[in-house]
Amino acid sequence: MQKVYLDNAATTKVSHEVLTEMLPAFNEVFGNPNSLHSFGREALNLVDKARDRVAAGINAERGEIYFTSGGTEANDWALLGLAMANKAKGNHIITSQIEHHSVLESCKRLENLGFEVTYLPVDETGLVDIAELLHCINQKTILVSVMAANNEIGTIQNLKTIAKIAHEKDVIFHTDAVQALGSFKIDVKDLDVDAMSISGHKIHAPKGVGALYVKKGVKIDNLIVGGGQEKGKRGGTLNLASIVGFGKAVETTVRDYTINNKKLKSLRDYFVSRVKEEIEHINVNGHNHQRLPGLASISFNFIEGESLMLLLDMAGVAVSTGSACSSGDLQTSHVLKAIGLAPEVAQGTIRFSFGTNNTKEEIDYVIEVLKKNVAKLRQMSPLKAKRVRK
Amino acid sequence: MQKVYLDNAATTKVSHEVLTEMLPAFNEVFGNPNSLHSFGREALNLVDKARDRVAAGINAERGEIYFTSGGTEANDWALLGLAMANKAKGNHIITSQIEHHSVLESCKRLENLGFEVTYLPVDETGLVDIAELLHCINQKTILVSVMAANNEIGTIQNLKTIAKIAHEKDVIFHTDAVQALGSFKIDVKDLDVDAMSISGHKIHAPKGVGALYVKKGVKIDNLIVGGGQEKGKRGGTLNLASIVGFGKAVETTVRDYTINNKKLKSLRDYFVSRVKEEIEHINVNGHNHQRLPGLASISFNFIEGESLMLLLDMAGVAVSTGSACSSGDLQTSHVLKAIGLAPEVAQGTIRFSFGTNNTKEEIDYVIEVLKKNVAKLRQMSPLKAKRVRK
Repeated sequence: MQKVYLDNAATTKVSHEVLTEMLPAFNEVFGNPNSLHSFGREALNLVDKARDRVAAGINAERGEIYFTSGGTEANDWALLGLAMANKAKGNHIITSQIEHHSVLESCKRLENLGFEVTYLPVDETGLVDIAELLHCINQKTILVSVMAANNEIGTIQNLKTIAKIAHEKDVIFHTDAVQALGSFKIDVKDLDVDAMSISGHKIHAPKGVGALYVKKGVKIDNLIVGGGQEKGKRGGTLNLASIVGFGKAVETTVRDYTINNKKLKSLRDYFVSRVKEEIEHINVNGHNHQRLPGLASISFNFIEGESLMLLLDMAGVAVSTGSACSSGDLQTSHVLKAIGLAPEVAQGTIRFSFGTNNTKEEIDYVIEVLKKNVAKLRQMSPLKAKRVRK
Repeated sequence: MQKVYLDNAATTKVSHEVLTEMLPAFNEVFGNPNSLHSFGREALNLVDKARDRVAAGINAERGEIYFTSGGTEANDWALLGLAMANKAKGNHIITSQIEHHSVLESCKRLENLGFEVTYLPVDETGLVDIAELLHCINQKTILVSVMAANNEIGTIQNLKTIAKIAHEKDVIFHTDAVQALGSFKIDVKDLDVDAMSISGHKIHAPKGVGALYVKKGVKIDNLIVGGGQEKGKRGGTLNLASIVGFGKAVETTVRDYTINNKKLKSLRDYFVSRVKEEIEHINVNGHNHQRLPGLASISFNFIEGESLMLLLDMAGVAVSTGSACSSGDLQTSHVLKAIGLAPEVAQGTIRFSFGTNNTKEEIDYVIEVLKKNVAKLRQMSPLKAKRVRK
C-alpha cells in the first residue's frame, strides 16, 4: 500500500545529512562535554559547534542558547523561570488562547502559584487581538508569551508588534517558535524577543532536543537543577548526539528554507485548491497569507475528523485531527474553538502538514482518497441528513 | 598516542548493539508515538517495547516507567514532584550528604518552598548513618531519598534497610540509581522502593534519556507539563530513538551484568592492588566490598588531583577528579568531605572508572603513567616538602 506522510507538523523524519553528522557522536566522540580531559573537550567542541549553528540560525549569540530536551521543556522553563525570576516586579502574565499545551499548562501552574494570567482572544484567522493586549497590559505585567506560528492552523502572529508593545511597558516577551522554526526567517534581534523556544524534531533533527534562547541580561530561574551545566541554568549531562543533530538541522533548514518553503507552499496550495474545487462544504482555517507554508487546516462539514483520519490512515495517508500532543483527546481543539468554529465544524477538521519529501503525485493520491472517504462519511452522517432535511 | 578511557562513571560509549537498534527509529519508524495513524502506532510499538525492557530490567511494571531526559530530570522530578504531591502530610524530607547535585539542588529548592530537609551524615566508607535516619524520621517526614550507589566513591547503600525504616513510618522512599544501574541487580519489588531514577548514558545508551520509576499508587506532581504524554505525567514528544536505545541498553546490561561485572571487578582490583603496591602514600576511598565493581577512588597524598588529571590526560589517560557534573568546579567534593577526608587529601583524589572495553594492557600503561606523574608532582609539591621536613 502506498504510504503518504502528511503529518510533518507532528514530527519529521531525521534527514540523512543530520544523521550522518550525529553518528560519530555516539561512539567515536562520546565523552561527557563537562569532563576536562581530551574525550570531554572533543565532545564539548561538538556542542560548541552545534550551539554556534543554532545561534547563527536565529541571529543570537552562542551564550544565549540553552539546550533542553525539546520544545515542551523550553516552554515550561520559559514560563515558570521568567515568571519566578521576575515576580518581584509583578504577578501578571499575558498569553493567548491558542498557545501550545505546554504554555497553557504552565500558565495554569503559575495561576496556582498566585500569578494572574490573561488569555488573549484571537480573531477568526487566529491572529491575537492587539487591542486587547494594549488594554490589559499593566504595571503588574511581567511577561507576555505569544507563539510565533500556531501548530494547528499555521497562523503567524505579528511578533514585532507584540514585542514592541511589551517592551514599551518594560515587559519581557517570550515566543514559542517551535512550529515556526524553519518556515520563515526568525531573527531574534529583528523580532526583538527576550526568550524563544525551539525544537529539533520539527526540522528533521531527532526528537528529544530543543533549546531556549534567553537574551543576555534577561533573568530566568531554573526549571531543571543539577550539576551546573549550561552555565548553571539547566542541569543534566548534555544530550551530545542529539545536540549535534539539532545544530546541523538548524543550519540546514536555514540554508534551504527559501527553496523548501517555495516547494511546501506550492504543494500546499495545489492541495488546497484541489480540495476547494472538488469537495464541497469545506472551509480552510487560519490566515489567508500569514501562515506556515506547509500546513493546511481544513474543516469538512458534516463529518467527524477522527473518522476521516482513520479512513485516510487505512488508505496509507497520515494526517492529524489536531496537534499530536492532544491526539486521543476527544475534546474539541482549544485553537479551533478560539477562532470561533462551531463544535460540529471543529470536530470535522483535519490538519495536513507537508514535508519537502512529499510529491505532487502523492497529493493527487490523497485527493482521490479524501474525496472517496469524505463522500462515504457524509452518506452516513446524521449531521448531513439533518442539513438535507432542512 | 595511546588513549585509555577510565571515566566510564562520567559517561560511556554507545554500544554497537544499542546503536544498531536505534538507527531505524531516526528515519524509518519516525512517527510521533502520540499520533494515531500507522506512523505513530509503529513508533509507539517501539516505545512500548523499550518500556517493557526497562521495566523488566528492574522488575517493575510497564505502567510504572516514565521516560525523562536523563537522570538529573528524573531526580529533580522525584524530589519536587513527590514532595509537592504529598505536602498535605508533612514538610520534612530526609536525604544524605553525598547525593548527586541534582538531588541536593532540588532539596535546596524545596527548602526555599518551605520544606525542612535533613542531610544524613555518612561514615568514613560512605554508608549512610542508619541510627541518625531512625532518630530524625518523624511524623512530618514525607520522603526519604538516598542514592543506591555513589558516583564518586562507589559505595552501595543498604537500600533495603532504609526502605524498611521509611515504610514503617509510612514515608515514601526514592533512590537515585543512576550510577548503580547495570552494576548490580536492582529489583524495585525486592528493594521495596517507591520511586527510582535511572539513566541511559551510564550503560552505553546515548546521553539525554533516562526514566523515573514510580510505583503504582504513589502520588507525584509533574515537573514538566504539556501535551499529556506519559499518562499526563511528563509532557513533551517522546524521545523515540534514544528511548529505543535505552531499552536495548537496559536489556543488554541486565543480560550481561554477571560477566561484565566480574570483568570490571577484576580490572579494578588488579589496578588497585598495583597502585597499593607501587605507589606510596595513597588511600582507597569508599567501602571495602559494598561498592561498584568498576570504580576506584584513590587519594594521592601531597599532590593536587587536578594537576594529576591533566598530566594523565596529556598521556592519553582520561580520569576524573570528581563527578563530571562538577568538573571545573574547584570546590572540594562534598562527598569526600562527608566521608571525612581532610581538604588536602580530598584535593588529591582521582576517580578511575572502568569499562568492559578496557584491557589489562591498558591498566599496565596507566600504572606506569601514574607512577611517573605522581612522582613528578610530589617532587615539586610544597605539601610533600613540608611533610619531609617534619
